[in-house]
Amino acid sequence: MPHGLLKGKRGIIFGALDNKSIAWKVAERCAEEGATIVLTNAPAAMRFGEINALAEALKCEVIPADATSTEDLDNLLTKSMEILDGKMDFMLHSIGMSVNVRKKKEYTDLNYEWMKTTLDVSAISFHKLMQSAMKLDAMNEWGSILALSYIAAQRVFPDYSEMADAKALLESFARSFGYHWAKKARVRVNTISQSPTVTTAGSGVKGFTDFFGYAEKMSPLGNASSLACADYCVAMFSDLTRMVTMQNLFHDGGFSSMGMAPELLEE
Amino acid sequence: MPHGLLKGKRGIIFGALDNKSIAWKVAERCAEEGATIVLTNAPAAMRFGEINALAEALKCEVIPADATSTEDLDNLLTKSMEILDGKMDFMLHSIGMSVNVRKKKEYTDLNYEWMKTTLDVSAISFHKLMQSAMKLDAMNEWGSILALSYIAAQRVFPDYSEMADAKALLESFARSFGYHWAKKARVRVNTISQSPTVTTAGSGVKGFTDFFGYAEKMSPLGNASSLACADYCVAMFSDLTRMVTMQNLFHDGGFSSMGMAPELLEE
Amino acid sequence: MPHGLLKGKRGIIFGALDNKSIAWKVAERCAEEGATIVLTNAPAAMRFGEINALAEALKCEVIPADATSTEDLDNLLTKSMEILDGKMDFMLHSIGMSVNVRKKKEYTDLNYEWMKTTLDVSAISFHKLMQSAMKLDAMNEWGSILALSYIAAQRVFPDYSEMADAKALLESFARSFGYHWAKKARVRVNTISQSPTVTTAGSGVKGFTDFFGYAEKMSPLGNASSLACADYCVAMFSDLTRMVTMQNLFHDGGFSSMGMAPELLEE
Amino acid sequence: MPHGLLKGKRGIIFGALDNKSIAWKVAERCAEEGATIVLTNAPAAMRFGEINALAEALKCEVIPADATSTEDLDNLLTKSMEILDGKMDFMLHSIGMSVNVRKKKEYTDLNYEWMKTTLDVSAISFHKLMQSAMKLDAMNEWGSILALSYIAAQRVFPDYSEMADAKALLESFARSFGYHWAKKARVRVNTISQSPTVTTAGSGVKGFTDFFGYAEKMSPLGNASSLACADYCVAMFSDLTRMVTMQNLFHDGGFSSMGMAPELLEE
Repeated sequence: MPHGLLKGKRGIIFGALDNKSIAWKVAERCAEEGATIVLTNAPAAMRFGEINALAEALKCEVIPADATSTEDLDNLLTKSMEILDGKMDFMLHSIGMSVNVRKKKEYTDLNYEWMKTTLDVSAISFHKLMQSAMKLDAMNEWGSILALSYIAAQRVFPDYSEMADAKALLESFARSFGYHWAKKARVRVNTISQSPTVTTAGSGVKGFTDFFGYAEKMSPLGNASSLACADYCVAMFSDLTRMVTMQNLFHDGGFSSMGMAPELLEE
Repeated sequence: MPHGLLKGKRGIIFGALDNKSIAWKVAERCAEEGATIVLTNAPAAMRFGEINALAEALKCEVIPADATSTEDLDNLLTKSMEILDGKMDFMLHSIGMSVNVRKKKEYTDLNYEWMKTTLDVSAISFHKLMQSAMKLDAMNEWGSILALSYIAAQRVFPDYSEMADAKALLESFARSFGYHWAKKARVRVNTISQSPTVTTAGSGVKGFTDFFGYAEKMSPLGNASSLACADYCVAMFSDLTRMVTMQNLFHDGGFSSMGMAPELLEE
Repeated sequence: MPHGLLKGKRGIIFGALDNKSIAWKVAERCAEEGATIVLTNAPAAMRFGEINALAEALKCEVIPADATSTEDLDNLLTKSMEILDGKMDFMLHSIGMSVNVRKKKEYTDLNYEWMKTTLDVSAISFHKLMQSAMKLDAMNEWGSILALSYIAAQRVFPDYSEMADAKALLESFARSFGYHWAKKARVRVNTISQSPTVTTAGSGVKGFTDFFGYAEKMSPLGNASSLACADYCVAMFSDLTRMVTMQNLFHDGGFSSMGMAPELLEE
Repeated sequence: MPHGLLKGKRGIIFGALDNKSIAWKVAERCAEEGATIVLTNAPAAMRFGEINALAEALKCEVIPADATSTEDLDNLLTKSMEILDGKMDFMLHSIGMSVNVRKKKEYTDLNYEWMKTTLDVSAISFHKLMQSAMKLDAMNEWGSILALSYIAAQRVFPDYSEMADAKALLESFARSFGYHWAKKARVRVNTISQSPTVTTAGSGVKGFTDFFGYAEKMSPLGNASSLACADYCVAMFSDLTRMVTMQNLFHDGGFSSMGMAPELLEE
């Protein structure tokens, strides 16, 4: 199955918590396709996760970084360039967390301090990463930057709460910064809007199981798995997609283009 | 021209700074159509503006409110219900300000503390307003809530900088909260994505004059004026549009649907 | 309730078959708001319908026209200008019919001759109407042209079959011709994407009842009625919306912005 | 550069006229990536083009087919399965032609018989191809069907005339039929919305050179070349993108996400 698509490319993967994480699969597939990578996650997340096992398997290094801290990001990028001996060709931002959802606050009764943290962790961190990378000149020409998003950025899934707003902000940062990256170094910036996925993070959302089944029925190809998402990320990191930028790309088995699936009414 | 379209309706208008403001025209047109209104603006903005002259002309009251403060919003809503003797039928959020743009920070060199203020003032304030109004049960059945947005929420206008991201967040709040308002009281929530408009606030953006001319040529009907926008707001507050909700409505002379205007190449 | 919003305006309403038709309600509401109108429908449709009863009630004339015939359209426009003593200020295109759906052909087994008729009746007729009106100089400055559409133009509802494709084509004609109408006479052209509506035409679609209930649950405000649609058409014909053009406007109780309604999972 | 991404896959490529054609580059890249293919084009187009030279270079066969004829399509599919000894894994529809544009008829003065030919050749042919392939069971599980489109399907480029409407119809067919293909055989159907490209066909459009330059400036990465498009098609035919379906994918250097490029105002 591997084709050497990313041979000679260097990249940073955020957000591999455990083997259910999309980022975990992306890291594995990137390595398989010949890339050399650095893994990173928040120090707190690393305590609970198994990222070191992944790093061992892939023979790569882990650099902890709080993605809301520009110092941590600067350190991550600088060290990655040292370790991988060159600028980056790709980066995956797979970070999202809603404090209000965790604390079970309703959308009509949000705590605004918590919302600020949600936006900072889930969206502004992506701007910070791109700004740090630009200041440090850390990306090669024709590089590719991706963030994982969700269709709640366009349509309302009430249980997804403020994460919807965070994803809308995230996608906007991809577009806005994508212009500047294109101009500076022909780097492309896109978001992948992925099916609901059974991850340790995703499952925390209220009514996730019911919703997962609903999306499975609504999507003509079914929900996209995290492995399929990793394959798509490989395609987006490869040289086959150099002219795709500032897009939000639905990777969802067709969910986003469905109005109503007859399968839903059959019961 | 007035048709009594808003007779018996009560509303709150944010953001009337001076007679170039869209909100100023909306206030005038709402009064003309028979509504009773309360004006509000940030205490700081009021010092520079002429909102009291407008209030005098329209025989309505002004209640200062910092839209980022839930206490101020609670006070505004409570007092408005007293003054107008009933719940609100409509509200206009016309607030936007980018600290980084004001301070001429490039998009690739943003100050993140300032960005937080930008997002708080320009977008989160809309969520806060809706949350306060819901908690205080301040809206009548079939009411209408509007916020003014801009197409930078969908497409990149580099000089618009982080305001683009703030508008994307604003529009997401409209959708997300629109669901809850519909369920609670059949209230609709929409954003109007308005042409570039010569206002005291809008003119602050770099290269505004050039851009205004570009949009004028690109829009088959030309740029929509603030008076035309006020008319559209009246339509959206009236009972003629009760089933339109969670939409972003382009009021832009056709700009958003143009790919390229031959007029642009003629020079 | 009437406000004289269309006083002095003249218009043509297509597609009033019986009192369940959206066009029927639009005609009533336009008359109520002070417009003078001409009704039209296909000669065949007129035999089954009750359009003459409506014309009598509204004291207006009926001019039969096959909307796929440019001669019929020319005749309709010329006669309407005579009868109403002036150019038109608005026109409503509310015409749609799928031969393949009627004959119960599956979407994967369409008869292409029938498809051509479907596209001609449901979409190309709109281009023909606008082209005839432009050649005859039949619209006043700042006029408003509307066609009724459906969200199947953007998303898949399998039972809607080729009508989805016809609606996509219809919406494209609105955009494309909207540019030319704006340039010629500041006339705006838009489509209204309406909730599923219990009409004699709409009910013919397979599984309509089930689907109507699904949309009712998915839409936070419920499905928009034909009367509400008529109100929205009045707003779009009035001078309050002059700068809105080349748009597809969802009038659907919020359906188009929903990803998933918890109400759907509750059973 | 080749990675064996399409090893063992079989496909049909429509529309390779000469070496400026996108389809020509797609054929070359598919062969390079290990696919075995059949080329096809309209008998008339073949007389003018150089498709046989391509077939010789790629050691593949050419089967002439009028894409508006279901018999021709049936023959093409049946023969292709014989020649390639199996069902298809991918198909590229790259066909478009506007009779009214060729004959220099203005958009407000179209000949409707010619429009029907335009729609038949440029859009309905895609439905016919998919219907024939489904009836003949000509696609393998997890196959990929692509058609080339253009952003005029969403936004107005007046010189593009009725081709815009044809592209809107084409994209709708991709969505609508994509549902059925997913259900039948997990086959995905997408359109690629490509930058303006200097092809023998594309150059026929009025003012193409000016427009090409405009798009070049508006796109942060510049216009995507036909070779870059071929690379993207390879990615979409490969197993890396199995869960992407019913999408319109912009391959345009960012054009579609730009509101205004400062580069345009600099002159």
